[in-house]
Amino acid sequence: MTTVADLGDFGLIARLTADLPQRLGVITGVGDDAAVLDIGGDHLLIATCDAQVEGTHFRLRTTSPHALGRRALAVNLSDMAAMGAKPRFVLVSLLVPPTLDVAVLDGIYIGLRDEAARFDTAIVGGNVARSAERLILDITLLGTGAKEKLLRRGNAKAGEVMMVTGSLGAAAAGLLVLEDEQLAARLDPASLVRPLAAQRTPTPQVAAGLWLTEHGITTGIDVSDGLAADVAHICQASGVGVCLEAALLPIQPEVVTIATLAGRKPLDLALFGGEDYELLFTVPPEYVDVLPRELFAATGVKATVIGTMCEELALTLVQQGQSSPLSLDGWDHLRSNSAS
Amino acid sequence: MTTVADLGDFGLIARLTADLPQRLGVITGVGDDAAVLDIGGDHLLIATCDAQVEGTHFRLRTTSPHALGRRALAVNLSDMAAMGAKPRFVLVSLLVPPTLDVAVLDGIYIGLRDEAARFDTAIVGGNVARSAERLILDITLLGTGAKEKLLRRGNAKAGEVMMVTGSLGAAAAGLLVLEDEQLAARLDPASLVRPLAAQRTPTPQVAAGLWLTEHGITTGIDVSDGLAADVAHICQASGVGVCLEAALLPIQPEVVTIATLAGRKPLDLALFGGEDYELLFTVPPEYVDVLPRELFAATGVKATVIGTMCEELALTLVQQGQSSPLSLDGWDHLRSNSAS
Repeated sequence: MTTVADLGDFGLIARLTADLPQRLGVITGVGDDAAVLDIGGDHLLIATCDAQVEGTHFRLRTTSPHALGRRALAVNLSDMAAMGAKPRFVLVSLLVPPTLDVAVLDGIYIGLRDEAARFDTAIVGGNVARSAERLILDITLLGTGAKEKLLRRGNAKAGEVMMVTGSLGAAAAGLLVLEDEQLAARLDPASLVRPLAAQRTPTPQVAAGLWLTEHGITTGIDVSDGLAADVAHICQASGVGVCLEAALLPIQPEVVTIATLAGRKPLDLALFGGEDYELLFTVPPEYVDVLPRELFAATGVKATVIGTMCEELALTLVQQGQSSPLSLDGWDHLRSNSAS
Repeated sequence: MTTVADLGDFGLIARLTADLPQRLGVITGVGDDAAVLDIGGDHLLIATCDAQVEGTHFRLRTTSPHALGRRALAVNLSDMAAMGAKPRFVLVSLLVPPTLDVAVLDGIYIGLRDEAARFDTAIVGGNVARSAERLILDITLLGTGAKEKLLRRGNAKAGEVMMVTGSLGAAAAGLLVLEDEQLAARLDPASLVRPLAAQRTPTPQVAAGLWLTEHGITTGIDVSDGLAADVAHICQASGVGVCLEAALLPIQPEVVTIATLAGRKPLDLALFGGEDYELLFTVPPEYVDVLPRELFAATGVKATVIGTMCEELALTLVQQGQSSPLSLDGWDHLRSNSAS
């Protein structure tokens, strides 16, 4: 017998969705951050869904219902950002234990409403069903995008420069703190604020994604599985390789402190931690100076060069002048045991 | 403390979604069978989602993975039928125990693919997440509809006639058989075929829904919660009452047999059993003769007159010449304990 855990989630999705038939209106089906659909009219329809499962993605002990509602929508908004699309409509499917206090759901819905309002997005429907043990929030997000102007995984070219917004590893550092009370007690409370916020209520880079598509950038993905895994997604889909410079990865000082106290390498949190929900994208080399300045001026979002795309189909990490193959130990929800 | 079970699912949805803000593009949000959205272009976007939960909506012991895949999509196709919309795109969110045999998911996906192909609908994306105990299939279905041509709950008028497609109570009869092996043993196997199929693989009335909208019918809902509850949804949304004739309700002979052997009234299965996934709709009285004939000629679907809409805001059932108020003991997934 082959179990779900044997295959892992990427293997499982690939197996179940192999050779789906072509149908009219489906521009991109399974395989990017969201489906790209044509129902006529000037705009394309972009659709994505993502579930947050109690015990796997969150624990009610370590997060507030409000933060949970915000996060459940934010991870879907990040998929929309990864397409450079505009989020519009939200469907909320709740799977709830019958004994759950309704006050928890009230809090979750206030979080959902607050996050929806922040991104000018409407909650338009959903479903409630009984799930005996665990609370599950399954969100479908619909958005719109202009034709020929979307961020895709498969458009990267050799010679382009790879950039990332914000910083990396903070969500993983926040998770370390949530899972180890003794670690938290050894840290200055001020140094916990950004890592905990990155883990509990990540900020989807919707404005940056829209700005990038409006300025002709065509390759992008969000950093959800971990930088290494998401870089690999771009390389596989584009048929190119990459050379990443470890020293260029943007890592906050708090992340370095937490990683060090926890006996982990900061670089590992940045490469493999996942759930950063930053945007990873490639640009022609001549954009490298002007793009970060203009992006920051328009959206307040920083972008950093972290490597270069190459023709050789290899993922390389340069550290202190030494090149080595980049490992792909990204985040696999089906194999992992961690939860926030 | 107020629990989820105290409120029931209608109460919970009403509480969580009260006073959602208006936003551009949302023609109908929470409150009909599906959301109706405008993203520009000639067609409206119709969106709905519905989850099937192991132990609540199905048991792997009494259904095949293939039937489960078909059913999970069928209940969403029925919501699309209830709007008179054309189903187009499917997102599949799977919540899976890590120890589950992948062969079960293979079977479910073949069922999903078969049902999608039957209704010319494309599987375009989804998500896989870990759920320790139960298998859950959460499906989002997107469709398109012509502007001003959709079935809604709130358009019924006094003097119109209420009709229903197909027959009622068969899914509930099938559930009785699945839950009681001794009952099944006392029945002729041939009499089990239609009730079991109605429960395991209901046929969504997509073609009938499209035909009705193309022929000017504007009020409709699918019979998912139970005839009494779904009649009440139309009456509440339209601000009218109804007088149902018990003797007119279409009930298959097998349903009468099963109900009688189980010590239940056939009428109760038809009124309260739910999960029939037929279409309930209202028509001007002058359509009563011609509509069933033309609908049958075009789609092979039968339609039966079951009552009349009235101005008085009451739900009345006429049985053997006696009028009595129609009870509303419909199906509430959060309070009920039954599963197929």
